[in-house]
Amino acid sequence: MTTPNNPPVVVDIHTHMYPPFYIHLLQSRTTIPSSVPLLSSPPSPDHLPGRPLTKSYTSLPAKISFMNTHNITTSVLSLANPWLDFLPPSTAGQTSLQINADFQSMCSSSQANNRLYFFACLPLSAPLPTILDTITYLTTLPHCRGVIMGTSGLGSGLDDTNLLPVLKQLAEDNLPIFLHPHYGLPNEVFGERATKGEYGHVLPLALGFPMETTIAVTRMFLAGVFDAVPELKMILAHSGGTLPFLAGRIESCLRHDGYLFKKDREEGKGRRGIWEVLKSQIYLDAVVYSEVGLKAAIEASGEGGVERLMFGTDHPFFPPLEEGEEQWGSVTVNKEAVDKALGEGSKEAELVMGGNAVRVLRLYEE
Amino acid sequence: MTTPNNPPVVVDIHTHMYPPFYIHLLQSRTTIPSSVPLLSSPPSPDHLPGRPLTKSYTSLPAKISFMNTHNITTSVLSLANPWLDFLPPSTAGQTSLQINADFQSMCSSSQANNRLYFFACLPLSAPLPTILDTITYLTTLPHCRGVIMGTSGLGSGLDDTNLLPVLKQLAEDNLPIFLHPHYGLPNEVFGERATKGEYGHVLPLALGFPMETTIAVTRMFLAGVFDAVPELKMILAHSGGTLPFLAGRIESCLRHDGYLFKKDREEGKGRRGIWEVLKSQIYLDAVVYSEVGLKAAIEASGEGGVERLMFGTDHPFFPPLEEGEEQWGSVTVNKEAVDKALGEGSKEAELVMGGNAVRVLRLYEE
Repeated sequence: MTTPNNPPVVVDIHTHMYPPFYIHLLQSRTTIPSSVPLLSSPPSPDHLPGRPLTKSYTSLPAKISFMNTHNITTSVLSLANPWLDFLPPSTAGQTSLQINADFQSMCSSSQANNRLYFFACLPLSAPLPTILDTITYLTTLPHCRGVIMGTSGLGSGLDDTNLLPVLKQLAEDNLPIFLHPHYGLPNEVFGERATKGEYGHVLPLALGFPMETTIAVTRMFLAGVFDAVPELKMILAHSGGTLPFLAGRIESCLRHDGYLFKKDREEGKGRRGIWEVLKSQIYLDAVVYSEVGLKAAIEASGEGGVERLMFGTDHPFFPPLEEGEEQWGSVTVNKEAVDKALGEGSKEAELVMGGNAVRVLRLYEE
Repeated sequence: MTTPNNPPVVVDIHTHMYPPFYIHLLQSRTTIPSSVPLLSSPPSPDHLPGRPLTKSYTSLPAKISFMNTHNITTSVLSLANPWLDFLPPSTAGQTSLQINADFQSMCSSSQANNRLYFFACLPLSAPLPTILDTITYLTTLPHCRGVIMGTSGLGSGLDDTNLLPVLKQLAEDNLPIFLHPHYGLPNEVFGERATKGEYGHVLPLALGFPMETTIAVTRMFLAGVFDAVPELKMILAHSGGTLPFLAGRIESCLRHDGYLFKKDREEGKGRRGIWEVLKSQIYLDAVVYSEVGLKAAIEASGEGGVERLMFGTDHPFFPPLEEGEEQWGSVTVNKEAVDKALGEGSKEAELVMGGNAVRVLRLYEE
């Protein structure tokens, strides 16, 4: 494969699909998640009690057509939430093999025409050896460029010490984690009127998702995971949730927390600050829907921060295509944010729109 | 009173105290909140099971001394959380009178030397007429410049329609609300290790607080409160929590939420977007501990955004003074953020450091 040079590449690193085996899995289930209720919880784009899987979620030609309409050169596909979190330990390994094989098959198909890569899914409910074997296996799949992961890890979060061997293996195999929210926040925080449905899905989608991501990655940071696995690379969905804005407050709280300060000193722990981690181990997608957010995400990523952001669309979830529309708001709003923040056609804009993904994810390399 | 002109005024709009009557109230209680346990929950700066009230929390000379040490010209004091939320309806009104009288008395004392104003507290658990009477009374207190309020409103949040008369009265009397978090998020979202105390108080303080504020104000926005009370002014603690960073996502979710879109159309509702509200009814303090956050807060506040931010310290809570330190990190980090973002001594920096507070809160006017 060679890098397309002219016009500059546009790479979408945040774009979801349910491949055939996953659809089959959901359709055969009688409890949530199944194919209909799955999409009635966030990120369902409307307020209906259920939403059938449409072609946008399942069809490779529909994905390619979306890419063509929006001048996207290359997409890095990932399974949409809830991934395989709900599977019993006994079947998770086999299921992940099937689904990752589906993704590899889509990416290497003639229809894909060398324009697709993917983030694989891990069987996190399976026994540890199965998870580690899966990671080793992923390195043999030519179009796999990392894994997508939710915030629950093995079940109790990404700060669980039992997850460390998984993170170490991923780091060793140079497979970045694309961290994506799913569980949001407990409904009670959104209040009675939200529970009655008065606000549609706005609160869990607009606030619950990014807050979940922020909490998950901050827990990892406080647990010392980034120091324990310094080669681990994380790509955070939705520009890090709210991490760029809150990093200063996190750092201030950490430096001045009596308990942690004392503990770190006793353990002789030279903990790196959150800003250090942001500029060395964390990458952010550019799915933040505003120039304000995009600039903050870049600036929070350190001096060369513009090299750590990667364009994405969140297609086909959010926002959904409305009647009569051809352009997805997810593309236009996020591309406009890049153009406004960095200048349309600038070298920096080209990096965020595609160049960074090519470099960080080693796209177009054999 | 006249405006001090040289050097430029520095106004701290986020600075807390427990006046004498509140201390008396806490000390006489046998259940939480009481004087010790109150400060063991966030925002306690350490991990001890309790923390006695020190002079920093209670003493007027200590506050003045803090101001002198840090070149703060004028402070707008406010009662620290949990305010009066816990009081029974029968006593809340009388208690608020006493506490607001304490604040007025501090501000007009000779010690204060015309350098103090305050945000009053409201008896939100009292019957509505008592709350409205209190607001009317506040307009007679010469140093009152608004009210401090938590996110629970009358008990079920700021999107409760029963709160509207209160908000309308505040708007009519030109008393801005200083919105401040207290309840954070349910502990479960921070995971097992946080529950065991491994992370000190970092997660609820660094994330729970700003997320609570963001959720509260977004609920108000979705409920149409800003459209219903267009003269209402809100000053959001901690630079809006995470609102500046998430505004784009909120706007995108709102515009594309099938349910809300349909409802707004049916009701012929011309709902203003969140960006409109940010630049017309919302002010932010500058307590965000980073240049990144400060710039995002200014940019999210619209074209003249630099006129909507106001310096604050969160003294004496956060971060606490460490042994041997004289300068509070709360002051230096936040002042540095202003200097870096806007240029030390620039006209814009002077606005954020004091000029905006003088204008918005009508300081030094008779």
